[in-house]
Amino acid sequence: MRHLTTLFDVTASELSEILNIAHQLKRLWSKGKRPPLLAGRVLALLFEKPSLRTRVSFEAGIIQLGGSAMFLGQEVGWQKREKTSDFIQVLGQYTDFIVCRTFSHSSIDELAKFNTVSIINGLSDLAHPCQAIADLMTMQELCDNVAGKQLTFVGDGNNVSRSLALMCAMSGIKFRLLGPESHFIEKEWLDRIAARYPKADIVQTADKKLGMQGADFVYTDVWVSMGQEEETQQRLKLFQPYQVNSALMSLARPNAKVLHCLPAHREEEVTAEVIDSPNSAIIPQAGNRMHAQKGLLVWLAKELGWIDTADI
Amino acid sequence: MRHLTTLFDVTASELSEILNIAHQLKRLWSKGKRPPLLAGRVLALLFEKPSLRTRVSFEAGIIQLGGSAMFLGQEVGWQKREKTSDFIQVLGQYTDFIVCRTFSHSSIDELAKFNTVSIINGLSDLAHPCQAIADLMTMQELCDNVAGKQLTFVGDGNNVSRSLALMCAMSGIKFRLLGPESHFIEKEWLDRIAARYPKADIVQTADKKLGMQGADFVYTDVWVSMGQEEETQQRLKLFQPYQVNSALMSLARPNAKVLHCLPAHREEEVTAEVIDSPNSAIIPQAGNRMHAQKGLLVWLAKELGWIDTADI
Amino acid sequence: MRHLTTLFDVTASELSEILNIAHQLKRLWSKGKRPPLLAGRVLALLFEKPSLRTRVSFEAGIIQLGGSAMFLGQEVGWQKREKTSDFIQVLGQYTDFIVCRTFSHSSIDELAKFNTVSIINGLSDLAHPCQAIADLMTMQELCDNVAGKQLTFVGDGNNVSRSLALMCAMSGIKFRLLGPESHFIEKEWLDRIAARYPKADIVQTADKKLGMQGADFVYTDVWVSMGQEEETQQRLKLFQPYQVNSALMSLARPNAKVLHCLPAHREEEVTAEVIDSPNSAIIPQAGNRMHAQKGLLVWLAKELGWIDTADI
Repeated sequence: MRHLTTLFDVTASELSEILNIAHQLKRLWSKGKRPPLLAGRVLALLFEKPSLRTRVSFEAGIIQLGGSAMFLGQEVGWQKREKTSDFIQVLGQYTDFIVCRTFSHSSIDELAKFNTVSIINGLSDLAHPCQAIADLMTMQELCDNVAGKQLTFVGDGNNVSRSLALMCAMSGIKFRLLGPESHFIEKEWLDRIAARYPKADIVQTADKKLGMQGADFVYTDVWVSMGQEEETQQRLKLFQPYQVNSALMSLARPNAKVLHCLPAHREEEVTAEVIDSPNSAIIPQAGNRMHAQKGLLVWLAKELGWIDTADI
Repeated sequence: MRHLTTLFDVTASELSEILNIAHQLKRLWSKGKRPPLLAGRVLALLFEKPSLRTRVSFEAGIIQLGGSAMFLGQEVGWQKREKTSDFIQVLGQYTDFIVCRTFSHSSIDELAKFNTVSIINGLSDLAHPCQAIADLMTMQELCDNVAGKQLTFVGDGNNVSRSLALMCAMSGIKFRLLGPESHFIEKEWLDRIAARYPKADIVQTADKKLGMQGADFVYTDVWVSMGQEEETQQRLKLFQPYQVNSALMSLARPNAKVLHCLPAHREEEVTAEVIDSPNSAIIPQAGNRMHAQKGLLVWLAKELGWIDTADI
Repeated sequence: MRHLTTLFDVTASELSEILNIAHQLKRLWSKGKRPPLLAGRVLALLFEKPSLRTRVSFEAGIIQLGGSAMFLGQEVGWQKREKTSDFIQVLGQYTDFIVCRTFSHSSIDELAKFNTVSIINGLSDLAHPCQAIADLMTMQELCDNVAGKQLTFVGDGNNVSRSLALMCAMSGIKFRLLGPESHFIEKEWLDRIAARYPKADIVQTADKKLGMQGADFVYTDVWVSMGQEEETQQRLKLFQPYQVNSALMSLARPNAKVLHCLPAHREEEVTAEVIDSPNSAIIPQAGNRMHAQKGLLVWLAKELGWIDTADI
C-alpha cells in the first residue's frame, strides 16, 4: 500500500514522476480532454475541518478522471461510534483513496498504519503535502528550471512551511523561512529533512534582509489559522513586522513571484498591492491544487497496479 | 463565456435551440439511453437556500450526461472567509458550471462578471430562468404550437412570474398576470422586455375575468415564499381572492392546463380539486426541470466549444 | 416496478440470482474490474438517520458500476414542505433508485406504493434486507453449501434478526434466536414467514444451550440501537446474560464463525476476545454490504429492463 501522509512517503524521483503526470494531465485538460483513467474509482474525503480548495479540488479532480468522490464530515461517527480498526478496515473495502483533513496528524498516521486503503493527507497540524506538490508545479510553470532557485516563506513554522521546506530539499530549491525566531520550524523536522536530503539548503532567520535576499518566490500564509483564534491579538502583533508589502518585496529579486496558499487576508499578512500585482501567481497556484492532485491520484493508481504506465 | 443569470442572456433562437436539445435528450432518456456528452465535467451547486427540485434535478441531469455534481452549502465560506474574486476565480478553475441559488440576484451577477466559469441562476430574488425553460418545454409537450397561446399566472410579480413573462415574450405566448395591483411585476422589468421584444403581449390585471379569459395555461405559485414568513398573514389575506379553484378555472378556456412550480400548498393558492385534476400537469412539469436543464448544459457545452453539434 | 422494502418482495430464486450477480461482480472487483453496467444511473439516499456503512457502501457501489449517488438528508424537506405524493413523484422522475433509511417502516411503504421509482430499504424499524443479503453472501463464502447450516442470532427480535430469519427461511438455513423471551421476534412476522416458507426451521429460545447447539454461525448486534437510548440501563441488564463470550461460543460448533452487523461495542454484546478472533468474519461481512448491494442494483436494473442478462 502507498500513502501520502507527508512528503517523506515518496522519494525525490517519485515526486518528479507525480509532477510529470500532473503537467501532462493539465495539458490534456486545457484542450478539454479528460481521460477516464480512474473510471469507477471511489475517493472519500474524511474531513474534521471545513474546506473549500482541498475539498473541491479533490472532488473535481477525481470526477475529471472518470471516478467520483464522497464527502464525509464528522457525521459518519469517526473516532466516536466505533473502534478505529473497524472503521478504517470497513471504509477501506469500499473506497480506493481516503483524503483526510484532521486537526491532529496522529489521526492520519493511525488510519495509514492499517494499510487497507491509500491515505492522503489533505491537511493536518503537521504537514500539507498536497499544497507543496501543487506549489512545486506552479514554480515549474514559472521558470525553466527550479533547481537552484530560492523560495522564501514569510511567516511561521506551520504545516505549510514544513512541507515546503521538505519539497524544496527534494527538488534542489533553496528554502528560507523569514519570521520571528519563536515560531521557526522545529529542529526535529529539519533534522529529518537533513538526514534524508543532506544537500538541503534551508535557513531560518528573523532578519528581513537575510531572509528575502535572492528570493525568486515569496510565499506567505495567514497569521492566524483555524484553531488559533484565541491567540489572534498576540499573533497579529508578533507577525506585523513581517507583512509582505512593497518594502519587503524590494528586498527580494526583481519581479520575484508571490505565492499564497489562500484564503488570504489582505492588509494583514500581505498587502493588496502585492498580492494583486502582476507578479502574483495565487490564482493559477490554487488551480494547480487540482492538477497536482490528479497527478498524485494517477501515480498512486499506477503504483498500486490499477493502471499501466502506458495508459497514462 | 456564456452564463444564464436571466433569460436576457440568451436570444429567442438560442432558447429554441436549448429546447430542441432538451426534447431530444428526453426522448433518449425515455428509451433508457443516457449519452455521456459531459463525461468528466463538473457541476457545482452553490446554494444559500435549501432545495429539492433544483438541487436534485441538476445533480441527476449532469450524472445522466456522464459528469458529476458537488453540492456546496454555506459551509464553503462564500462571502465570508475570503474575497469574492479569489473565491470565484479559484472555484472556476475546478468546475465547468456553477448553479447558484441565492437570496440576492446581485450575488449571481457578481460571480458571472469574472467570466471564469459558466454561471447558471438556480433561483434568485429576481428571476428563475431554469423554471421558465422547463415550463416552456411542458407547454410544448401539451400543445402542437405554443405561439399564440395564452399563459395566465395567478399571483404576484416574483422571480417565477418575471421569468415566465420574459419566456412568453421570447416565444410568442400571450402572458397575463392576475393578482393584486400592489404586487404586479415592476415596470422596469416589463420595459426591459418591451425593449428587447417589442411584440410582447403582456397584460397585468386585478380583474379575474380579464385575466383568465382565453387562458390555455393557468399557473400559480405559493403565496408566501422562503424569506417572507413575516408577511404571512398579510399575504394570505391579500391573495385569497385569487385562489385557483374551480370557479376561477371556469373563466379560462375549457380544459385549460394547470401548472405550478411546486411545492404547492393545497387549499391556499390552489385547491386540491384543481391541482389534482386530469388537467394538472404539475408532475411532468417538475420532471421537465431535469430535462430542460440537461438541454441547457449541453447547449452551453456546445457554445463553449467543448462538444460539437454533431455529437448531440 | 420492483422494490426491496423487505425480503418478502423477492422470491427465493430471485434472491439466489441477486447473490450470483454479487459474487460475480466481487470477482471482477478483486481483479480491479469495474464494469459500467449502470452508467448514467442515479441513486438517491434518503436518510432520516446518520449512517456509515449503508451510505458509503451504496455510494461506492453505484460509482463502481459507472453511476453516481446523491445523499439527501432531512434538509430536502421530506414529509415537511410538501405532500408525499408530490415529493416522490417528482423525485422518482429524476432518480433510478432511492435507498431509504427511516425510523418508521411505513414511510418506506408509503414511497413504494407510488411505483414511480425503485425503493430500497436501507434500514427501517421493521427490517434490514440489504444487511441480510450481504450476510448470506458472507456465509456462502465461508462454507460450500449454506443449506442445512445453522445461524444463531444472539440478541433481540429487531430489524436485523427479522430479516435474517426470513433470509434463512428462503435459503434452507436453520435459524435460532437466543435472547430474553420478552424480546423475541413477533409472532406476526414468523407467521408471515411460515405462510410463505412452510419448511422454515426457526426456533426462539432463552436457553443458551438450546440456542447455541449446532450453530455454524453466531451473530449478534448492539444491545441499544439508535432511538433506544432511554432504555439503556434496562437493556444492558436484560441482555447481559447473553453476551457472546468464549463461554457462550463453547456451546456452538467448534470454529463457529462470528458475525456482527457493526458498529460493535466490545465487552457489551460481544467480547473483544471473540469478535477479534480468527473465527470472526466481521470485516469481510461489512465489505459484502457493498458487493451484495451491487448485485441487488444490477439485478433490479435487469428486472426493470434497463440492461440485458447478457450484459452482466
